[in-house]
Amino acid sequence: MVRSEPFRPAKRVAGQKQDVWTIVNEAATASPVQPIINMGQGFFGYNPPQFVIDAAKDALNKVECNQYSPTKGRPRLKKAIADSYSPFFGREINPNTEVTITTGANEGMLSAFMAFIEPGDEVIIFEPFFDQYISNIEMPGGTIRYVPLQPPSNGATQKTSAADWTLDLKALENAITPKTRMIVLNSPHNPVGKVFSKSELEAIGALCVQHNILILSDEVYDRLYYVPFTRIGTLSPEIAALTLTVGSAGKNFYATGWRVGWLIGPEHLIKYVSAAHTRICYSSVSPLQEAAAVGFEDADKENFWDDSKKEMKSKMARFCAIFDELGLPYSEPEGGYFVLANLGKVKLPENYSFPPHVAERPRDFKMSWFLIMELGVAAIPPTEFYTDTNAHLGEEWLRFAVCKNDDVLEGAKERLRGLKKYMS
Amino acid sequence: MVRSEPFRPAKRVAGQKQDVWTIVNEAATASPVQPIINMGQGFFGYNPPQFVIDAAKDALNKVECNQYSPTKGRPRLKKAIADSYSPFFGREINPNTEVTITTGANEGMLSAFMAFIEPGDEVIIFEPFFDQYISNIEMPGGTIRYVPLQPPSNGATQKTSAADWTLDLKALENAITPKTRMIVLNSPHNPVGKVFSKSELEAIGALCVQHNILILSDEVYDRLYYVPFTRIGTLSPEIAALTLTVGSAGKNFYATGWRVGWLIGPEHLIKYVSAAHTRICYSSVSPLQEAAAVGFEDADKENFWDDSKKEMKSKMARFCAIFDELGLPYSEPEGGYFVLANLGKVKLPENYSFPPHVAERPRDFKMSWFLIMELGVAAIPPTEFYTDTNAHLGEEWLRFAVCKNDDVLEGAKERLRGLKKYMS
Ligand SMILES: Cc1ncc(COP(=O)(O)O)c(C=O)c1O
Ligand SMILES: Cc1ncc(COP(=O)(O)O)c(C=O)c1O
Repeated sequence: MVRSEPFRPAKRVAGQKQDVWTIVNEAATASPVQPIINMGQGFFGYNPPQFVIDAAKDALNKVECNQYSPTKGRPRLKKAIADSYSPFFGREINPNTEVTITTGANEGMLSAFMAFIEPGDEVIIFEPFFDQYISNIEMPGGTIRYVPLQPPSNGATQKTSAADWTLDLKALENAITPKTRMIVLNSPHNPVGKVFSKSELEAIGALCVQHNILILSDEVYDRLYYVPFTRIGTLSPEIAALTLTVGSAGKNFYATGWRVGWLIGPEHLIKYVSAAHTRICYSSVSPLQEAAAVGFEDADKENFWDDSKKEMKSKMARFCAIFDELGLPYSEPEGGYFVLANLGKVKLPENYSFPPHVAERPRDFKMSWFLIMELGVAAIPPTEFYTDTNAHLGEEWLRFAVCKNDDVLEGAKERLRGLKKYMS
Repeated sequence: MVRSEPFRPAKRVAGQKQDVWTIVNEAATASPVQPIINMGQGFFGYNPPQFVIDAAKDALNKVECNQYSPTKGRPRLKKAIADSYSPFFGREINPNTEVTITTGANEGMLSAFMAFIEPGDEVIIFEPFFDQYISNIEMPGGTIRYVPLQPPSNGATQKTSAADWTLDLKALENAITPKTRMIVLNSPHNPVGKVFSKSELEAIGALCVQHNILILSDEVYDRLYYVPFTRIGTLSPEIAALTLTVGSAGKNFYATGWRVGWLIGPEHLIKYVSAAHTRICYSSVSPLQEAAAVGFEDADKENFWDDSKKEMKSKMARFCAIFDELGLPYSEPEGGYFVLANLGKVKLPENYSFPPHVAERPRDFKMSWFLIMELGVAAIPPTEFYTDTNAHLGEEWLRFAVCKNDDVLEGAKERLRGLKKYMS
């Protein structure tokens, strides 16, 4: 027998529509305004703090820091994380059984899905979502149930708060079925900037305990919150028993390219996450694990966490001033480094020509294309993070990442002033 | 409904027997001889070359080298790999479409399986195998067909060559079914040290072309060969169209903890591997990709590849001298840094007490335990890399990794002299 289609890919990687990053990059290359000011992707426009860079350089000098780490992570990093997080959790986290290191938060979440999701199991996620969740849940055969956050009703006309993006608890309850195995939370939230309140988390937690649903709490922006921040894993022992908390050295230390993440949780969950991680990546990058360990060990001494939060908050204020100035409504973030601005008031010129793959997408894709081409500022259309059904909830907004140098932010503001002429 | 077993893991991570690394580490901790000389796992006992370390340190100073890399890899690394491998392949490799960067060879291979294996598809691998293949093939739902390499018939009585581990082509042909989607090759081979000959590869390639079977050629030890080395992807355009070649910066540059690997192959295969990789890890570690790029760019100038091969060959000769001295047969490697010694002549003392999980395994596990406890030298029992059916083919052998400093090798030799009293 001769196989007829030897190069046919597996369904899980076949036939995807063009993703937002490709579209934005393509526009950035095609734009007459060069160079583009890129406020799209959430990478930092500056380096990790010097004490962490120095630690990485030191690690590179050590033989054992350049070789395979234990699959569960370097003992020094697991201990540093346990020490750093135990106060938040109000109990001693056991570094050997309750922490596992992964290749970024991303592969950490995939490991959690691989550890617990069997084909046909359902996972609940909120819209808008971090796009990698989708493929990561589908890879082990999971089915996704979507529950949209309700945007602020007056978000098109006035400045609102990320807190005004609300969860309809009834909708969440309706999404639960006998097949629901896991729910994914994200707080501080990308792209909304919402920090889920304690009472919201208590309500979600109660439902999870009632239905025995595992909680994957994506807290990669956990050091950047501008209102009180609650970790769902700390709310009760019953909730803690179901909860895996995800973190990212890339986000914490301004080093998204380092690919060091972790999960914290009870041993009965963590051991299977580690087992899955071993099968996926074997082990994670050694010298940068060592550097992240030093990062955690010395962060307080360096006053890094406080400075980091203050600095990002000030970048946020600095950048959002342009929307106040233009009279464009935006949703003021409670955490993280993304801000959603509502561009409903901006009129796209009639007959403006968009390439077909942009023209067929919702208005935010067109707005993003337009901003890149006309003003030279890149931002992300949030409907990429919605299902088609709920995309209308996001199509007036654009997501800007403010984790950039201040001169870049000022440059972007200057360019965005060009929006005036498209606003009536 | 209350789910009855909320913590039950997915089948893919449940109920594994204790793996060899855990058993060896446990023995190492329990041994009265301390510290153990570890010739077990294949990590290097020394640092990457200074020019590559320096490149990593330089990269850490650059903002863009600390942030997310493109999912397919940094352009500089893809180009450096294309430039380095084009001469071997006898054609220009396109860095943008025919190379993709992964998180070590390991996640690279997983990406290849995720890209092409649907549940029920069959993958052929040879025994002994690199253990990660198994879980990586099973994760996307693949079924494995095993074809054992035939060990040298006189391997228990005299020094043989890794070339004497032979492939029964008839057995390979019999393993092919209409469901066969892929075959995994490994040359230079771990743990055998065999470099597949051109004629062997031609025969395998012909079968793959005849049956349209994809070839995943794991060539992570590609710079360490002591006989002529053929890459199957270079044999014919028909074979090339089916072949993905896997490489590892960790193995090439003595930096197993860096987790930088790649696949080279035709665009119609590579694009799906990239797509799978994006879903698994998003992108791979940036500063060490940059360092690996410099590694490839400057390797010839530094005479690194030649030195590297010469050095490993001399370590191999230095270490194997102990087996000659003891009159213990071994299989002389044609490539890589592992050597298989045949310990059939060593008598385990009667009534020697092994823990139950070692007692139930084949003789090589007992031998490994015994060597650690009595002599303080750790080596790997190769039946870990066999199915139960074929484990008898490996149970007289132990695998030693010689990628260690010369004083460590000498120390191991001195300790191994202690075997004399167990040989009649
Ligand atoms: C909500 C969220 N989770 C996870 C990640 C991935 O984190 P990492 O880079 O550590 O894989 C991101 C990155 O943008 C994110 O926004
Ligand atoms: C045959 C073989 N393939 C792949 C790998 C994994 O390589 P990496 O460390 O780049 O993931 C190893 C590591 O021991 C190996 O022996």
